[in-house]
Order: sequence, then structure tokens, then C-alpha cells
Amino acid sequence: MACERLTEPSAKALLKETDNFLFDCDGVLWDGRGVIPGSLETIIKLKELGKKVFYITNNSSRTREQYLEKCKQYGYPATVEEIVCTAYVAALYLRNISFKDKVYVVGNPAMGKELDQQGIRHTGIGPCPLQGTAADWIDMKLDPEVKCVLVGFDGHLSYMKIMYAATYLQNPECLFVATNEDTHLPVSNSSVRIPGTGTMVAAVKTPAQREPIVVGKPERPMFEELQKLHNLDPARCVMVGDRINSDIGLAKMCGLKSLLVLTGVTAESELPLQDDVSRTGITGKRFEADFSAATELCTSRQPVRDGGLKEFVFLPEF
Amino acid sequence: MACERLTEPSAKALLKETDNFLFDCDGVLWDGRGVIPGSLETIIKLKELGKKVFYITNNSSRTREQYLEKCKQYGYPATVEEIVCTAYVAALYLRNISFKDKVYVVGNPAMGKELDQQGIRHTGIGPCPLQGTAADWIDMKLDPEVKCVLVGFDGHLSYMKIMYAATYLQNPECLFVATNEDTHLPVSNSSVRIPGTGTMVAAVKTPAQREPIVVGKPERPMFEELQKLHNLDPARCVMVGDRINSDIGLAKMCGLKSLLVLTGVTAESELPLQDDVSRTGITGKRFEADFSAATELCTSRQPVRDGGLKEFVFLPEF
Repeated sequence: MACERLTEPSAKALLKETDNFLFDCDGVLWDGRGVIPGSLETIIKLKELGKKVFYITNNSSRTREQYLEKCKQYGYPATVEEIVCTAYVAALYLRNISFKDKVYVVGNPAMGKELDQQGIRHTGIGPCPLQGTAADWIDMKLDPEVKCVLVGFDGHLSYMKIMYAATYLQNPECLFVATNEDTHLPVSNSSVRIPGTGTMVAAVKTPAQREPIVVGKPERPMFEELQKLHNLDPARCVMVGDRINSDIGLAKMCGLKSLLVLTGVTAESELPLQDDVSRTGITGKRFEADFSAATELCTSRQPVRDGGLKEFVFLPEF
Repeated sequence: MACERLTEPSAKALLKETDNFLFDCDGVLWDGRGVIPGSLETIIKLKELGKKVFYITNNSSRTREQYLEKCKQYGYPATVEEIVCTAYVAALYLRNISFKDKVYVVGNPAMGKELDQQGIRHTGIGPCPLQGTAADWIDMKLDPEVKCVLVGFDGHLSYMKIMYAATYLQNPECLFVATNEDTHLPVSNSSVRIPGTGTMVAAVKTPAQREPIVVGKPERPMFEELQKLHNLDPARCVMVGDRINSDIGLAKMCGLKSLLVLTGVTAESELPLQDDVSRTGITGKRFEADFSAATELCTSRQPVRDGGLKEFVFLPEF
């Protein structure tokens, strides 16, 4: 089914049938230049209306507490329970399957802290530079307690780390978990391509010749762990995001409704709109009015500002 | 078509219709424990019979000169013109397309030397450790002359290198070349999984969202560059290798005949043999008699030693 623009009647219907709003963060609430206009007001209004709000991010480089700090710094009304990041979900996932062994981590300090908080033992975080040659590697010292390799964002990715991870994964009983597979990070006003966690995952998958359980969007654990904690009814949830493959993908995977904003990665030109809605000639990816328009729709005031862009696009089924 | 065992009549026919023998090295001529028995005698006998012999390896970590040294050390009669390694083929490929700009290399010193020998400018080889944060990366200094990213084996693979490579590749006019995509290196008697060049290639492909031109087996450039240099007729060439996907794959891709040995990666149990040849109960991957049997076949002496293993498997069509 094609997506449709959010109109006043559909926005009212959406509000009526939704208790829980799951917001992606980067590209939806903020970007490299700060708060995306209108997003703060939308969150505040939704909370006033008694809706539950969650902050759902694939970023594995921050703990929930660090995300909470960021939310507060920007003025978003958040509690730690409302924040769902992949470092946290990965640790929670392992706790919920009663994992008792040790984790080899290709990752960052936030992942280490989240594992610690869930009581999951791991081999530590940090650089692991190239040492020796093949003759030494063949006798490399392994930790017999390791029964899981967890891969997330790791700026210290190295050949040795990949070798350790791939070697542990030769044991079919060793779990393979990844926080997410985003190929690159969104960047505005720069031609630099910043590799995302998908890079680290691909680097381990290739020699290991195995596929990981991915906890982040669009895979199920990201929603399922939250659902368990807050007893959420998927039919009464909406996922608000800027990426079709991860955000809208999660909604489709878990039976949630979805709202796509055009303030981040996905451009309107990429969307299959319904026939009766003509495409506008928009080429850029950033529309300042997005969230203001959405807030107005949500609160049943004048739905379209400046008679122009209605940037909340409603995707009831992806 | 299924493969068939090399018998005395088929070996004689093969010798008659073949002028050029292309040998993979690791797993065919030698392995971690030294020379594979019989391989030396086979090469010498083929040369005595007036056949051309080439040493064809996907290994990108050595120059042709370094391979020549290794051949000599083991006693193989080789000249530098007979050696085809991917560091060399990548450089030759760029020279043959008259590449005049600069190459960004994710690779090793041998690749740098081969580029130098072909007069191809590059940005240098060596470690490139993590520096700064996203705020710095966005303004990273790029070399405007770079119009090719070349990826090979790199023990110093790092996040910064991947970022540079992926960023250069955002320019659609920037070539993307890889030496090979082997996922891991063959290792005997160790549970360690040593990542191959496929790891580096996957790490760059993922954020770049592009596919490279691969020069190594099973892709065409590996044979085509050799063919140009020596004016080879594919129909009168046989590729001898231990890997179905790379060695036999190259033969299939370029219209060569192929011989599979079971001294390396591929086990007999993986092969589709013709119906009239019953499988033996072999489970291991190493059969000392391989090359001796082959030599005997080639020289029309008693074809099978010990009435047992005939480990040269003939794959006329893969």
C-alpha cells in the first residue's frame, strides 16, 4: 500500500487510536544543527494529551543515561525508562535469554556500561592493535568462557578484533548479536561518508561466515524488549521516523502504525504516494515546517502552515 | 556437468590439449607446513614436457618478486613473468586503462610497490589510527587528485581508512577496485579464523554502498591481464586449484579447463561426482599422494599409487 499524507481527519483518527508514540531521534527530533523545529512542541503536546512517548535510537555509542542528558539539554521531557538505545537493548536481550557466559565485544564504552548494568560479563572495551604475524595468531589466546560476540559501533575496529570475533564464532554455540546494521551516519552539509555500525558487522560477518541476530531497527528485539517492559499493544503504537528501511521497517515488522518525517534521510521523491496526491517539486531533505505542521494537525488547529508543505507522511502499511 | 576423476586416458588427453598450466599456490603447491608432496615434481615434469607454467595467487600481500623468492626457496623453477599475484594485477589493470590520477589504498606495502612499478601514483601505505570525532571528520582533508580506491589485504584496517575510502567513493567518477574477496585464509591445525581481504572489501563496500571491480580469482582480470601479456588461448589453458569458488570459478568464467586438487580448502565430500564413480569415505582435506599421483598420470606411469586415492579431480566444466 502506498503512503498517504497526514491530513486533519487522518491525524485525528491516528491520535484517537494511538496510545504510544515511538520517536526515532537523529533526523526526527534533532540533527547536526540542533533541535528540528516543531519537534519539541509535538512531544510536549503529546504528553499533555496523555500519550506515552519513547525515544528509539539505533545509535549504540551512548547509554540510556547519556541519551537522557542529551534530551534534557535540548529540552525534551524524558525519563530513562522512555529511552531505548541499541546498547541497552542488546544487554537486555542477553539478560532476558538468561545468558550467563562472557561476551566478546567489538564496540564502545556505552555498550560495556549497558552490559555491566544488566550483569552481563564481557572481555572489555578499547583498542586492540595489530600484533604479530600469522604464526602468532594461530596460537592466539582465547577466553573459554566467551559464548557470545556482540558487535556495535567501534571506532577502534581493528584486524585483531575482527579475528578474535570471527574465531569465537567458529564455535556454533557462540551467539552472534549485533546492535544494528546502519551503513552510515546521516551528515548534513558535508561530502564525508561516516561509516555506521553496518561496517563493523560486515567486517565480522565476512570471515565468520555467519549472520547475527540484530537487535536494532528494523529487527524485532528493539520493539519486543520495550513491549515486554511496558506491556504495549502494537496496534496502539505508532513509530515516527525518517528512514524507510529502519524506522518504517520496524513498524511493518512488528505491526505498528508509522509516520515518516522528511527532516532526515528519506526524501519525498523516494515515496510511493497515493494517486490523488500529486508530488511536489521538493528536492531537498529538510523542511523546517515538519513538526510544527504535525503539532497543529495533532491539536486540530489549522493543519497546514503557509499553505505549503505537509511533511508528516502517514504510512499505515509499508 | 559433474566433475570426474582424472584417469590415465583423461590425463593423457589433457596433456595433449593443454599448453599452459595455471597453478594456484597456497593449498596446491604449499601450505603452512611447507611443500605439498609431489607438487614440485609435477611442475618440473610439465616444464620438461615444454608446457608453460604460471603461479596464480589471490594473495595481495606480496609482490611478484617476493613470490619469486618463495618459489625459489621451495625449489620451484619460476621466473618473475610466471608469477601473477593480485597486487600486481591491480596495478597492471590500472596502467592498462591508462589511469593517470591518484589511488587511495586500503592495503599493504606490496600493493604500494606494485603500483610504483607500474607508475601509478598513490596516497601511501601504513596505519591511519582513529583521530578526532565526527565534528572533525566532517571537515576531513581530501586529496582532490584521488580518482580510485584500491582495497586489498590490510592488517592496519581502521575506521579512518574506511571513512576515507567510502568518502572518495561518493564521487561516482572515482573507481573502486579490489584485489580479491577471499573471506578468510586457509589455516591448518588451528581453530583461529584469519580474516582475508574480503573483510576489508566488505568494510568499505558497506558505507560506500558500491560494488568494486575485483581483479582476483574468480573474476576475469586475473586471467585477462596474463592472457594479454602471453597471448594465451583459453582453450589451451588449465587452471589447477584447491578452491571451487575462486580457482574453478575463474576457469569457468574465462573458458579454461580446470583441475581440482584436494590438498587445500575443498574436500572430496563437497563434489558432485559422476554417477559411476562411487564416493570414497574420505573426510579429511589433505591427501599426501595427490601430486605424486598426478605426476604419475601426467607422465603415463602407473596412475594410482597404493590402489587408493586419486586426488586430482578433473572438472572440465564447473
